[in-house]
This record gives sequence, structure tokens and C-alpha cells, in this order.
Amino acid sequence: MVMEAKPLKQLKVRCLGISTHWHPVAFLRLDSGIARSEGLVTQSRIELVAGERVLTATLNMVTDHFVDDGEIGLSDAAVTALQVVEGDLITVRHAPAIESLHHVRSKLYGHQLGRQAMQDIVSDIVAGHYSDIMLAAFVTACAGSRLDTHEITYLTDAMVKSGERMRWPQALIVDKHCLGGLPGNRTTPIIVAIAAAAGLIMPKSSSRAITSPAGSADTLETMMPVQLDVATMRQVVERCGACMVWGGAMALSPADDLLIRVERALDLDSEGQMIASVLSKKIAAGSTHVLIDLPVGPTAKVRSELQAKRLSGILVQVGEELGLTVRTHISDGSQPVGRGIGPALEARDVLAVLRRQEDAPQDLRERALTLAGVLLEMGGVASPGQGLERATQILDRGEALARFMLIAEAQGGFREPGVAPYQHAVFADRDGVVTLINNRFLSRLAKLSGAPADSTAGIDFHVRLGERLSRGDRLYTVHATSPGALAYALDFLALHPHEVRVDGEFV
Amino acid sequence: MVMEAKPLKQLKVRCLGISTHWHPVAFLRLDSGIARSEGLVTQSRIELVAGERVLTATLNMVTDHFVDDGEIGLSDAAVTALQVVEGDLITVRHAPAIESLHHVRSKLYGHQLGRQAMQDIVSDIVAGHYSDIMLAAFVTACAGSRLDTHEITYLTDAMVKSGERMRWPQALIVDKHCLGGLPGNRTTPIIVAIAAAAGLIMPKSSSRAITSPAGSADTLETMMPVQLDVATMRQVVERCGACMVWGGAMALSPADDLLIRVERALDLDSEGQMIASVLSKKIAAGSTHVLIDLPVGPTAKVRSELQAKRLSGILVQVGEELGLTVRTHISDGSQPVGRGIGPALEARDVLAVLRRQEDAPQDLRERALTLAGVLLEMGGVASPGQGLERATQILDRGEALARFMLIAEAQGGFREPGVAPYQHAVFADRDGVVTLINNRFLSRLAKLSGAPADSTAGIDFHVRLGERLSRGDRLYTVHATSPGALAYALDFLALHPHEVRVDGEFV
Repeated sequence: MVMEAKPLKQLKVRCLGISTHWHPVAFLRLDSGIARSEGLVTQSRIELVAGERVLTATLNMVTDHFVDDGEIGLSDAAVTALQVVEGDLITVRHAPAIESLHHVRSKLYGHQLGRQAMQDIVSDIVAGHYSDIMLAAFVTACAGSRLDTHEITYLTDAMVKSGERMRWPQALIVDKHCLGGLPGNRTTPIIVAIAAAAGLIMPKSSSRAITSPAGSADTLETMMPVQLDVATMRQVVERCGACMVWGGAMALSPADDLLIRVERALDLDSEGQMIASVLSKKIAAGSTHVLIDLPVGPTAKVRSELQAKRLSGILVQVGEELGLTVRTHISDGSQPVGRGIGPALEARDVLAVLRRQEDAPQDLRERALTLAGVLLEMGGVASPGQGLERATQILDRGEALARFMLIAEAQGGFREPGVAPYQHAVFADRDGVVTLINNRFLSRLAKLSGAPADSTAGIDFHVRLGERLSRGDRLYTVHATSPGALAYALDFLALHPHEVRVDGEFV
Repeated sequence: MVMEAKPLKQLKVRCLGISTHWHPVAFLRLDSGIARSEGLVTQSRIELVAGERVLTATLNMVTDHFVDDGEIGLSDAAVTALQVVEGDLITVRHAPAIESLHHVRSKLYGHQLGRQAMQDIVSDIVAGHYSDIMLAAFVTACAGSRLDTHEITYLTDAMVKSGERMRWPQALIVDKHCLGGLPGNRTTPIIVAIAAAAGLIMPKSSSRAITSPAGSADTLETMMPVQLDVATMRQVVERCGACMVWGGAMALSPADDLLIRVERALDLDSEGQMIASVLSKKIAAGSTHVLIDLPVGPTAKVRSELQAKRLSGILVQVGEELGLTVRTHISDGSQPVGRGIGPALEARDVLAVLRRQEDAPQDLRERALTLAGVLLEMGGVASPGQGLERATQILDRGEALARFMLIAEAQGGFREPGVAPYQHAVFADRDGVVTLINNRFLSRLAKLSGAPADSTAGIDFHVRLGERLSRGDRLYTVHATSPGALAYALDFLALHPHEVRVDGEFV
């Protein structure tokens, strides 16, 4: 049973100029020698070998002329990963069976996953061995509170180990995170500016949106470059005490981005993976102290105080296991924060607060100051109970704005966020009071309008719970960058007309 | 908020000759007007509209010459589904949001799915609205005993309603099914031949393999055509009292085939979907009385008598809810049945039994006769306790063989199964007794050798549990149709050398 080396046939690369997102796809002629001799069929998982590089790809068979016998067509993702050019010679072989899938099946049947199992799964995911179907099965198997605290710790640790890990010369590195679900709650840029102005080190890396219409990275990108390499990021932090970058550009916890892509397609946030995602990024980024904002509301991601306390407990415990000090802050999540929902619209609100404009949304200002206050206390630059006052001082003296602009310049230059060309206002259909705001509806509507991919798309939300309105007052405005996207959002709106409710007054 | 009709731009079809399995894919130029005006990006879910036909497809963007602005490239699956030819004009629009996905998420969070929710999910799946990621999430959410009996009933019913339903003039229609997992257990063709010869009506439709190296349809196809349309199938049954066809060709329970494809990629059998799959096909095929064989063994699909009894209870109960009489038969699943594992190798065993060859595998013969006996009693053509004797008579008098050949001829003609060109024998490495046979290993090995896609590939298994062997005796032979597939199987074998164990005798 000794194996001979398998004979590998060389194939000439054709760069087809087909974008298949991250997923590498290869195209072979149905009647080619290699397909017949290796028994390859459409949807086969194959390995492409170019020198030292090995890539797992999905095979599609072609009958048309654009790939000849002796050639292999590659999608853009495959060309990039293999670093090949047209005419290079590569070899093809069956992808080996994925042993870690049996751990995924085992999880489906209710078994607990151990440290090594999680490590094997995450390694295979990062190596690109999992197809979309397999990624979806893993994400789904872990969704709905099916990971216990140990499994979340193992997953977090495996995700940290799957990528780069940053080290900083300073002993104390602060960070903050908002555990999502509240449209427009864009406190990060304000908090980072205040913390850095107060002398803390805060190398902030943010994600793009998962199921929301904008992540911090999406919002920041409308004001400054956020895709920095690690060397540039370090220079920014050295110069400014902080940065505000997209985490995905730094190969920190790379498994996370692959999992998030699948969660997004399912419009699903898995609790265990959410926690592992947050903490793995923080640990990989070298943070020592992290403040986590947990907005609670009936239509927010966290729906009850009880759930928030449970999450809080897991976050603190997993952090402790992995040497990270975690503090949580439970906040009101009953309605959007600020006015904008969508990258550029939220950026506009952030700038209004930093610039101390009269029309700046006060709720956004107050939240950012509260959280910044806690962070200043955690970092030891304000005495217990004095954080809020110190944060307010820094903002009101213009030190936060100055620091924000310093960071933006260091990252490549500040720019004003844009405005979408297509807008559609929705009005109150009666006199009355705003009695219900469905945050999930607003997020969905903003996404259907094109956010976050279209950075200026989203919702401008003009009212607050309990506000008195007259018939014909504006409730909110949908922003979009194309008539198609606007129509798509309005289709959805027509199906769900009562998610922002104005009721006549009875008292 | 009244919607205007969205402007739809006509695009000229290019048939690209790309086979993407069942999944429709469209290709648009990145710089095309439609992509910009509609905000379309790679992996967008879009609807293609050709006259009355509407198809959901995944979009890939191209930068190369083979699709021009004003054109849309289509994969083979899209061309077939839309029934278009090169140069036809079609329109493209965003696919609507998939409302039923919220039921899938709800299931993930542990909620029970109601009748309407299951109906909505299955309808969307059959309409092609679910991407691979979404299908995988549904399959995974339902795996691992997460569906209760009500949910399985709703799923079964929804699957029946998703396709055609056959009606027969006779009041009593019998059927049988083996609830998988036992390599080589190919009793179906023998039982159908006996039942039909005894005067029962048995319009047998079988599946292809899910996670096994061969389904009945795969095995039958090596001996006769099995992809019959409904009219031809009816003619065969009218003439012969029975048929042996692939169920998928008949649009019975079409959701099942889409789900099975995903289960196969995950090497996963979900209990609830397994039951819904089996019963929905039977009900849709018009069966009234079904016998289900449940082989039990430590490495079979059903691992314990307890699990078999539980499954048995659910099968009978779901059947009852939907008007189907189900009887189960729990059998020994500790080792393979017959010698062949793989379509053609199993067909060879079936023919040996029907032809009453001296070297016919006795275990296959006995199992087929036992089950046929129960079926004859269920169908009222043998008195209780007399079924086995009557079945044996029919087989031994050659009536079963004659009926099998009659059916084969009616379906398009009998052919002898083929033999694979590449074979590799594995030998006992010591004197001793066969103490362990890992059925799952054998299935996996047979699949890696190419079964069921390569019909002659698989394993020829030469020994039995407890058999005494000498060093150098053959244990089994791997069959493959290409050196690549053989090498792939042997790679796996080298990693798992002790799954068929021969131990020295101590007594």
C-alpha cells in the first residue's frame, strides 16, 4: 500500500477576467485529457499548484472555445491567490478529503468541540479548503447559542492563531466595541479621538458591516483611507496615539472575514461567533483593556437586559481565559442614535458632534462621552467617577476634533462624506405621536437602498420616539445611488408600511 | 408610496458553454450600463426574465472580452432553465428579498417551524431562490434531531406539494425502502421482481446515492435505463406490474434533490430530512403501503436498536398523519451485504441472486427474500407467516428473473454491468480472524475511488466477520476508472490502514 507520486500534468493558465468574489474558480474543457484521466467533474474541489503555492478551487467544466485542451481558465480570485499570469504553467489535482468536516458534523449532533477540533476547523477555513456549503454548515451549526463558553474560548483562540498578532511597546492598549444592532450608533470615531487626546494608546481596527447597513470601517472610509498595511498603521499610532482602520486589511483573525461573509448572506449573527469575532480581533490587535457597548432594546440585536447580562458574563469570562480585561456597558437600544443610517450619513453626524455644530445629534454626543468617560477611567487617565467630565472637556475644547483630523491626515488625508443623488422622503400620514420604531426594519431598508456597498446610500431618520408630529411631517428619507436600488428599497417599504408608527393621541 | 414599474433593460444572451452543475450563473461586464445603473456586483442574486420564465441566478462580473456591454453571458443551467438561445433578448433585475429565510433563522434559534413556514421555505427552494449558503443553512438547521414529529410531517407534506403527485387506478400500491448506511445492501431489484411476479403493483422509484457509494437508481442504471418520463413509467407498470426508475426524473418531491445535493457535499444525513425525503417520494409516487428496512450496526447509519425503534416510531407516525401505511423491519447492519460496493459491482451481485448462480451471495438472497415475504403479506398476496415461503418459491422457479428482465426490456433494454479497468487488491497482513469491518470506511473508500459517478468504481469485498484468513488472503479490491481516482482512494487507505481488522487467534 505504498503510494507512488501521482502524475501531474502541466496546464497553461488563461486569466478569464471573471470576478467570483473571494471564491477561486477554475474552468477546464469537458473533453480535456486531464478531466478524463483524473475523473474531474463540475463542482469538483481541486487543488491548483503553482510553484510553492497551493490553492483549493471549485471546478466548472466548459464546452466553449474560450478554454482549450491543455489550458485552465482561472477566476480573478484564483489568479490573485496563485500570483500567476497568462501562459504560466500550473498543475491540478483532486483536493484531499477535509478531515475537519467530521468535527462540524459532530457539532451538529450536539457534541462539544474541543480545542484541537476548533483549531483544525479554523485552519482548514483559513487555508481555503471549505466551500460555501461547508462554511454555511459550520456557521449554522454554531448559531443560536449552541457554543458554550469553553467552545467560544477555543474558537476565539483558534481565530487569533489563524492570523497575525500585533505587539505594542506600551503595556496598556485600550479598545472599544459596540455589540451591534443599533442603527446609526457611530460613537467609535469620537471616542478614539477623545481617548488619544487624553493620552491613551488606541490602535482601533474596525469591521465592515455584518448584517447592519454600516460598520465603523464603512463609515470611516467615507472620511479617510482605512485600508492600511500594518507598517503604516504603526506609524499612525506612533504619531497620533491612535488609528481608525479596517481590521481585515491587517490579516488579524482572517477566519473572521470568511465567516462574516457567510453570516451576511444569511442575515445571521451567531452569538458564539460574534463574541469570538470581537475578542479575537481585539487580542490579535494587541489590546489589553476593552470596553464593550451593549445596546438593549426590543428591536436591537440584544433584546433584553437579561440577554445583555448573559452576553456580558461570557465576554468577560472568555476575555479572562485569554488574558484580556473586558468591561461592558449596557445602554439604551430602543431607537436609532443620531440621524444617519448608512456610511456617509453616519459620518456626517460624527463630524457634526466633533465640530460642535448646533444641529449635532445630542444623543450621539452623550453616548460617545459616556463611553469615552468609562474608557478614560479604565485606562487610568481619569479618576473613578471623573471620566465623563474629562471627556466632555476634551470634546468641547476642540481637542477631539484636532486629534481626529491629525489621524485622518496620517492615514492619507481627510475628505468630506458624499451625498446620494436619489432621495425619497416618507411622511406621517396623520397627526400624532411616534409610538414605535423598528430598528431592524430601518436597517433592512437602508441595506436594500444599497448601504453599505453604496457608501452614500441609507436612511436619514428625522424623528424620535414620543415626538409629536403633524400629518405631512417628514419621518425619514431614503437615500440611494441608482434608481434600481431606490426602487428595490421602496418595494420593501410598500410591503411593510407600519414599522415606524405614528398613533393619534387619546389622552 | 405607490411603486412605478422598474425600467428593465434588454440584454442579448451569450451561451457561454459553462457547466455550473444545477446552479444558474450569469456573467455581466463590470463596466456595463446595467451593472452601474442597477448597482449590481459579483455574487448579487438577480432575476433573469425571458418571456414568462423567471429564474434566480448568481451574478459574476467579467472584465474580459467574452461578454460585451449590452450582452449577458449564461451558464448551461441558466440557458436550459430559461429555454433561450444565443442572441435572445432577456431582462435582468434584483432578486427580491427572500422572506422565508427568517423561518430558517428562527429554527436556528430553537423555535418550532409551523406548517406554513415549512411550505414557504420549500416553495422558495424549489423556485431556485436559495443560494448554496442558504440551502446549507436550512439543511444544517434541521440536522441532528432538531425537527420534531410535527415539523417532519410539515416538511414531508411541503415536499410532496412541491412537485407532481402520481395517481394509480389500483387501490393498493406497495413500495419498499432501505434506510441506508449498509454498503452493498441492494435488495430492491430482487424484491420488486418478486412482488410484481406475485401480482402486486410496485411502481418503484429510487434515489441516487446521498452519502453512500451507490443508490438503487445508480445500481439499476448499470443494467437498464432508469430516467423515464411519467408516461413511459406508467406504461411499464401497466405492462409489468412494476418499474424500477430514478425518482428525480419524475419531478416527484423536487425539493428533495436540491437538499440531497447539499447533504452530499457535507457528507451529512439529517434525520428529519431523511424521513421527509423517503416518505415524500413514496406519497408523491402514489404508494399506500411501504416497508422500510432499517439495518442496525455499530458503523451503519442507524447504530442502535434504540435509535432504530425511535426512527421506526416517527416513520409510522408521520406516515399515519399523511395517510400512508408504514411498516418497518429492523435488520442486521454489522457488515456489508453481498460483495460489491458501488453501482456495477452491486448490480453483479443482484443478477447472481436472480440467476440463482452458485456463487451468488447468500446473505443478499436471504435478506431480499425476508423483506419480499413481509411485503407479500402486507399486500395480501400471502397469508401471515407464509410470505417468506411464497417469495422463495417465486425466486427459485425463475419467475423473479423473468419479471426483472421483462421490466428491464420495458424500460428500454437490459445490459450487463461493466467492469472497471483499474483494480488494486488489499491483503491480510497476518493469519487470523476478521474482527472488525468499518462500513463507513468502506463507503468512503468506495466513494473516493469514484463511485457512484464512475459506475464501475467501488470495492469488491471478499470476507465476512469471523472468517478465518491466512496472511496474503485478499480482503478487498478497489476498482477505479482512472489512475487519478485510484491514487486518491489509496491515499485515504494509507491514512486509515486498520479499518478492516484481522486479529491473531488467542483461543
